[in-house]
Amino acid sequence: MKKCLITGVNGFVGHHLLQYFDTEKTEITDILGMDYFPETATYTPQQFSYHFEQVDLTEPEPFTSLADNFDPDWLIHLAAESSVAASWREPDRCMTNNWNINYNILRFLKLRPIRYRSKCRMLAVGSSEVYGYRENWQEPLEESHPRLPYNPYAVSRVHQEDWIQLNVKWHKLNIVSTRSFHHTGPGQTNRFVIPSFIGQLQEARKNGQKTVHLQTGNIRLIRDFSDVRDMVRAYHLLLEHGQSGEVYNICCGEGVSLLNIIEILAEILELDVTIEIDETLCRRGEPPIVIGNPQKIFRTTGWTPQFSLEQTLRDMIQKQN
Amino acid sequence: MKKCLITGVNGFVGHHLLQYFDTEKTEITDILGMDYFPETATYTPQQFSYHFEQVDLTEPEPFTSLADNFDPDWLIHLAAESSVAASWREPDRCMTNNWNINYNILRFLKLRPIRYRSKCRMLAVGSSEVYGYRENWQEPLEESHPRLPYNPYAVSRVHQEDWIQLNVKWHKLNIVSTRSFHHTGPGQTNRFVIPSFIGQLQEARKNGQKTVHLQTGNIRLIRDFSDVRDMVRAYHLLLEHGQSGEVYNICCGEGVSLLNIIEILAEILELDVTIEIDETLCRRGEPPIVIGNPQKIFRTTGWTPQFSLEQTLRDMIQKQN
Repeated sequence: MKKCLITGVNGFVGHHLLQYFDTEKTEITDILGMDYFPETATYTPQQFSYHFEQVDLTEPEPFTSLADNFDPDWLIHLAAESSVAASWREPDRCMTNNWNINYNILRFLKLRPIRYRSKCRMLAVGSSEVYGYRENWQEPLEESHPRLPYNPYAVSRVHQEDWIQLNVKWHKLNIVSTRSFHHTGPGQTNRFVIPSFIGQLQEARKNGQKTVHLQTGNIRLIRDFSDVRDMVRAYHLLLEHGQSGEVYNICCGEGVSLLNIIEILAEILELDVTIEIDETLCRRGEPPIVIGNPQKIFRTTGWTPQFSLEQTLRDMIQKQN
Repeated sequence: MKKCLITGVNGFVGHHLLQYFDTEKTEITDILGMDYFPETATYTPQQFSYHFEQVDLTEPEPFTSLADNFDPDWLIHLAAESSVAASWREPDRCMTNNWNINYNILRFLKLRPIRYRSKCRMLAVGSSEVYGYRENWQEPLEESHPRLPYNPYAVSRVHQEDWIQLNVKWHKLNIVSTRSFHHTGPGQTNRFVIPSFIGQLQEARKNGQKTVHLQTGNIRLIRDFSDVRDMVRAYHLLLEHGQSGEVYNICCGEGVSLLNIIEILAEILELDVTIEIDETLCRRGEPPIVIGNPQKIFRTTGWTPQFSLEQTLRDMIQKQN
């Protein structure tokens, strides 16, 4: 019997989180969703009562009053400016936006008398971007490795981690943090790399083409991709079993290149694909390899990924059909 | 022949910096000083022309226009909310203040075409507070040790370092950063621990007392104290020889307890001192030991401290007399 507040509920991950809580029978009875953006689809879940509020979280009000009235047991914090490219275009906007949101949420948690503070448990979603760029890749990234943020978005995530760390220590807040690695899945918009590939390939197929010419960024980049549905299950398990003040990688521990992904998609869709690198799609400072070590979350929660990459890609193709 | 812009010039360190540049014949011909606070003493130096502007650096203007007109070769950035205690009282004020100042200064440096950017060299003064609290003290702190910020002020300094690191890398800025350890010297206000001891002891001596009863915070804390006059000389040497993108400890590499300092003061002033610990003066989260390793600045600049602790204390006593 838990009441759960979700910030940034109208994003890709927020929708999967609602779906997960609705499919799995969890301990959640009430959800209050918040987002800066209006609801794109009205959601009528079976397993819990759901209410939505359109709120600018960079301001303390009305967030604080709404959250205080709702009195959540769990707070899942997804709201953030999370585009690396946007953070380069408007670094101060990214930094102050993410800082203010995080600040206001922690401020709300600190309003209670100290003995009640740990009653509300927060899951602070962060990013593997904090690891940044390593000149010499040596081994999958572990939570104890130094953080070397290499873009404004990553710096904003380091700040989030530091501020949480401090407040858990000094104000007895109850917060588990994640470093979520790349994730994709059904419903992700075409602004992201994998849905964009799928969109182009589907389009060609519909036109009856057998051969497709793809314009891509750097397809040699190796990333550790999880399915968003595994990701939201990890969030739930961390709320149940994670240790306050700790940060957890969420990843598979295996790398795949974007070229591999194109090959799998071509196989599923029975297409011949030729590739042209478009320099304008290659972002600066992209580390060639990002693979995480997931042992800490495995040990703490028993979580392991359930979706194979091929299954994820098949489901995405079906959804886009 | 260099023009030098100094932010936060009206503080304790700013005044010593002006004095240092005036006494030593350096390459500086013009100084533009800026501060949020008005000038407390008018300064008419011999060795360079000096101009002061009262400016709120948390706003981009008029700082940007003034700095642009002045066109500095060196920029020494001292301006910051630097009180740990104040950062606990008003964490958001400390964070946004220090962030905005740093952001505006780097924004100014980025206004120039990329080929001129490295012409203006900045010294970003930071703090040993970024090292934070170590459960098990093992060895003097080195620049490569992980940063574990433990108060809002320290977090704001970590953010400063990260933002600088990013901008040196991506925008070809020319910035040397410091982690300045504790420093004291003639002219420091009684809000700080050593001048406060001296004030109390002098007062008793003037009243003809032979024995003094001191109320203190935790006097077992061990710190690595430098003389402010050594500190500003280090700043000058780092502007000349430091490497852009690097951060340098400035410290002696030796620890002394506050109790030791009281003992030295009692000896100089020929007083018997008794001590009472006042719990309200003990700050939370104070690491028992903070000693830095100064090998990197030794190697890079040849700097070594010239003032012994006893000399510093004698000069402070004379100044307060």
